[in-house]
Amino acid sequence: MQDTTHLSGVLAPVLTPFSDDGRPDSDRLIEHCEWLLDEGCNGLVPFGTTSEAASLGLDERMELLEDLIDSGVDPARLMPGTGTPSLADTVTLTEHAVDLGCGGVLVLPPYFYKDATTEGLFRYYAELIEGVGDHRLRLYLYHIPQMTGVPITADLIGQLASEFPDEIAGMKDSSGNMAITLLLVEAFPDLAFFPASEALLMEGLKHGVAGCISATANVQPGAIRALFDGVESGDAQWLHDRVSAVRSAILKSPTIPGLKALVAHYRNDPQWLVVRPPLLAMDATEQAHLVGELQRDLDFTLSIVASV
Amino acid sequence: MQDTTHLSGVLAPVLTPFSDDGRPDSDRLIEHCEWLLDEGCNGLVPFGTTSEAASLGLDERMELLEDLIDSGVDPARLMPGTGTPSLADTVTLTEHAVDLGCGGVLVLPPYFYKDATTEGLFRYYAELIEGVGDHRLRLYLYHIPQMTGVPITADLIGQLASEFPDEIAGMKDSSGNMAITLLLVEAFPDLAFFPASEALLMEGLKHGVAGCISATANVQPGAIRALFDGVESGDAQWLHDRVSAVRSAILKSPTIPGLKALVAHYRNDPQWLVVRPPLLAMDATEQAHLVGELQRDLDFTLSIVASV
Repeated sequence: MQDTTHLSGVLAPVLTPFSDDGRPDSDRLIEHCEWLLDEGCNGLVPFGTTSEAASLGLDERMELLEDLIDSGVDPARLMPGTGTPSLADTVTLTEHAVDLGCGGVLVLPPYFYKDATTEGLFRYYAELIEGVGDHRLRLYLYHIPQMTGVPITADLIGQLASEFPDEIAGMKDSSGNMAITLLLVEAFPDLAFFPASEALLMEGLKHGVAGCISATANVQPGAIRALFDGVESGDAQWLHDRVSAVRSAILKSPTIPGLKALVAHYRNDPQWLVVRPPLLAMDATEQAHLVGELQRDLDFTLSIVASV
Repeated sequence: MQDTTHLSGVLAPVLTPFSDDGRPDSDRLIEHCEWLLDEGCNGLVPFGTTSEAASLGLDERMELLEDLIDSGVDPARLMPGTGTPSLADTVTLTEHAVDLGCGGVLVLPPYFYKDATTEGLFRYYAELIEGVGDHRLRLYLYHIPQMTGVPITADLIGQLASEFPDEIAGMKDSSGNMAITLLLVEAFPDLAFFPASEALLMEGLKHGVAGCISATANVQPGAIRALFDGVESGDAQWLHDRVSAVRSAILKSPTIPGLKALVAHYRNDPQWLVVRPPLLAMDATEQAHLVGELQRDLDFTLSIVASV
């Protein structure tokens, strides 16, 4: 049964398709989200890094989220990214998501100022929480220092969780540093931690992570869900090895154009290749190479039926 | 006579005051801008780094710009910052500024993706220029790699200037690397280059920079203008030494809170101390220390009447 009060399990940071007029494409997005949920994703993260969220306009983000929920996706299963460099815009997006009933929001630190202090970041999140002023807010901190240059430290988590125990729900940790993630899990047992990779899921689950939010869940959601559900079964290591191998192979190419090229291939829909600048779409040769490298593994991984 | 077709000379990246309700304060902004122009600034850059532009919402930026122009400031003397990580939002802000008749716009590269390629950045700016689609657009590239992690390279400038010779007007170079700036001035004689410091103005003007866009112009605009106008006079070295010393002293503190503390002191208006998180305002002790360190020098520098 889906737990509608806390997000956990396998979450996909959903790729954002674009129409041939360059606008985000709601229909293709909804179709992809429905497939991800059918395959076994416990939840979805629209407007994560993999979603090219930084390249979307404020209005585009709000319209896409409304379209997605209007299509019938349960908002309790959504954790949209609502972080921008600006407190004002982040309040706008976060209020909007909470009003729509989203189960959580994923919030980047303000990432223009590289020398932000712990106190400055605390005040940023505190003013966000107070600005939204809604007891339904469940805020997941987004630690991705390789993109933001602004880390979410244990000190900051501690201060925020202590001041806002109802609103601070957890963290997505995209650092890839599992040793640190596990120290945080131990230090903050009431919070939900999500590493950003299915390759860290098996070890993480043994130590109390809530699940994972992984880019490559866009193409192998069912197999990752099978690993999540079967982590104590005899198949766990085998599943871990398979999904990790597929992930590693995909990450040899630029992640977002590569994932879109795979979706374009499997849906036989070249419109899925489109990315927004500064990203560059894969050309046909690069796409064919990636598909060639991955097809056998990915066909097999896709055929793993999630035990849900 | 003010050249209304090209921006040059001393430009101030205008500090953004906030009201006691936390909103940007148009009245204080207008008062400060009028003072800066009266003191001799050739132009103003609302929504630069010093303006806490990254912390302002899209609507706030557009409303402030409208208020400023409605107050009577000549839009031809304005080069608002319109860059955000998102192409969609950047088109919105840029169209708005061009529609209002602004003499230029200052555009950051999209700064979420740290591994952007030259081709990706070219496509970003190209789609911006084509999206705005207005022959009045004069775009200044904003090179500030210490904040963005995304440099504007000579290759990128060359490709853009070649493809969009009418729209690409110049660059603000906040790298502080004068040797590189001067190579760019030589390589692109049709573009206007602005280092981000009055301490680089004297040497720069000898080699063809267009002026400077300096944070500390918020507190010593007249003296910098006197240096700009008198760079070939016998007073140039003396003026250079004075404005450079004041600048260095200010930059020992966090720049934006420090500049606001100085304005708060000189206007006897503590509301000017307020910054948005993640920045932190100076407290009374820090303000008193900064003012104590600077008052004699700054009083003297402020007393230098611009020869305009």
